[in-house]
Amino acid sequence: MEKFEVTILGCGSATPTLRHNPSAQVVNIHEKLSLVDCGEGTQLQLRLRKVSFMALRNVFISHLHGDHCLGLVGLISTFSLLGRTKDFHVYAPGDFEPLLNEMLSLFCHKLEFNVVFHAIDTRKNAIVYEDRTMEVSTLPLLHSAECCGFLFREKPALPHINREMTDYYGIPVCYLSSIKAGSDWEMVDGTVIPNSRLVIPAAPPRSYAYCSDTLYNPDLVPLIKGVDLLYHEATYDKSKEHKAVLRGHSTARQAATIAKMSEVGRLMIGHYSASVDDVEVLLEEAREVFPATLAAQEGLVVSV
Amino acid sequence: MEKFEVTILGCGSATPTLRHNPSAQVVNIHEKLSLVDCGEGTQLQLRLRKVSFMALRNVFISHLHGDHCLGLVGLISTFSLLGRTKDFHVYAPGDFEPLLNEMLSLFCHKLEFNVVFHAIDTRKNAIVYEDRTMEVSTLPLLHSAECCGFLFREKPALPHINREMTDYYGIPVCYLSSIKAGSDWEMVDGTVIPNSRLVIPAAPPRSYAYCSDTLYNPDLVPLIKGVDLLYHEATYDKSKEHKAVLRGHSTARQAATIAKMSEVGRLMIGHYSASVDDVEVLLEEAREVFPATLAAQEGLVVSV
Repeated sequence: MEKFEVTILGCGSATPTLRHNPSAQVVNIHEKLSLVDCGEGTQLQLRLRKVSFMALRNVFISHLHGDHCLGLVGLISTFSLLGRTKDFHVYAPGDFEPLLNEMLSLFCHKLEFNVVFHAIDTRKNAIVYEDRTMEVSTLPLLHSAECCGFLFREKPALPHINREMTDYYGIPVCYLSSIKAGSDWEMVDGTVIPNSRLVIPAAPPRSYAYCSDTLYNPDLVPLIKGVDLLYHEATYDKSKEHKAVLRGHSTARQAATIAKMSEVGRLMIGHYSASVDDVEVLLEEAREVFPATLAAQEGLVVSV
Repeated sequence: MEKFEVTILGCGSATPTLRHNPSAQVVNIHEKLSLVDCGEGTQLQLRLRKVSFMALRNVFISHLHGDHCLGLVGLISTFSLLGRTKDFHVYAPGDFEPLLNEMLSLFCHKLEFNVVFHAIDTRKNAIVYEDRTMEVSTLPLLHSAECCGFLFREKPALPHINREMTDYYGIPVCYLSSIKAGSDWEMVDGTVIPNSRLVIPAAPPRSYAYCSDTLYNPDLVPLIKGVDLLYHEATYDKSKEHKAVLRGHSTARQAATIAKMSEVGRLMIGHYSASVDDVEVLLEEAREVFPATLAAQEGLVVSV
């Protein structure tokens, strides 16, 4: 099966600790690499995790808090030092554009490639990126700044040819691509062999939802229903629910409740507060509600 | 003796590596802490080296290349999260001010303390900071951007009272502060005891020169003559002198030549190119010219 995996570069929150880096992930779909958020130090994590800088095509920034985007200018500067010529696309809230342009003009004034800015509306659930392989859509979140998550979804693949059946019916090779595309087959005697007998369905398209910083928000449920993997922030444990509400964050239990209601395949928690000494506490709390939970950690690679 | 030490937080150059962090140092003079340059990831290094965030009073930015200042906004944001109320002073080339203000207004919009900007003229050798303990002056450097180093110099301390002598002459305690300040002592018979017999000179004031990014520049010599410790960039070894010239940098041999001409106490080299696999090569090259050379490395603390 083609690759669809998530590499965690950072899963801490804003106050820096020696345990976690600020938010950043790489989503690899069929060797197309996207960066998701880009906290300070992301480029060092890319080096450490042996992710190719040049393979990164774009970045999706969930919101304009420093721990989600302060690593971007350094990264773009490094692209330049490494001789990048390919465009790099930035998907972020529109307020970022003028500042990013000014930072680039001061720190990266001789770029040999374009940094193409795409303003996203964090309040909408809309497709913001699409190609033959995948689409990325925004997931409105409730936080202390305008903020959205991102849903990465594979495009449905064409089915596989069932060679035993096509050989049995003597279908010439030149017709196989139309069979793959959905055609039935008509025999010389006029009998129609339905397409479904001639192909094996492709694996269903996989999906990954990234919900970076958010209050407990059941409005998310229909938007992420049935995704294979959900990353949902769990900044605090349930004893700090009051603090979570005040600061626009969730507890591990709340993350798990969203996962359960959304009937996702697996939940990955992250965005741990600096006050969290032991992630196991959050993990146990989440698993009580939603057993298929794992805890993000720097360097973890999760296959979707 | 009162503390005067330099802690290396980062001594790599712009292209990130796993061996070195971008430029940043802490200069501690009598427990007054200054940050010198602030590359990406500086706040993590501060944590790692157990430097108190709150003890940092100011930052001196040598020039506006990302590897010398991209960690500043994250650091200021963390000051805010940690509840800082004390002013923080930024000494940097004036072009940085409008951009810094915009970054702060986007990423740190609820600061409970002032970030006070002091524009420095990198082309001048001038005192930019002064208090009772120390002064900091700029050292014009030759680089691909407007750039200056910084000279940290202790103020001359008052001499110590020579208690044996003051007791011998029966000088009352209430006169000791004027003796310390330089007065002679007149005996009842009119004999004058010169001040020099009554005091022990304080240790001579120490000095540290930080020369971040620069071409080989003998014009520096009179400005840093006789400093106790000189940090001078040594981005490349001598085989890459041509590259050094092209990019506004120095080789280890050139750094050592400046140190020798300036008759400094010790030289510390740093700002290693990502292409430098073995700092020992640079160190040996420098020691051939100036034996009292040490190599910067992250976490190194050098007493001046």
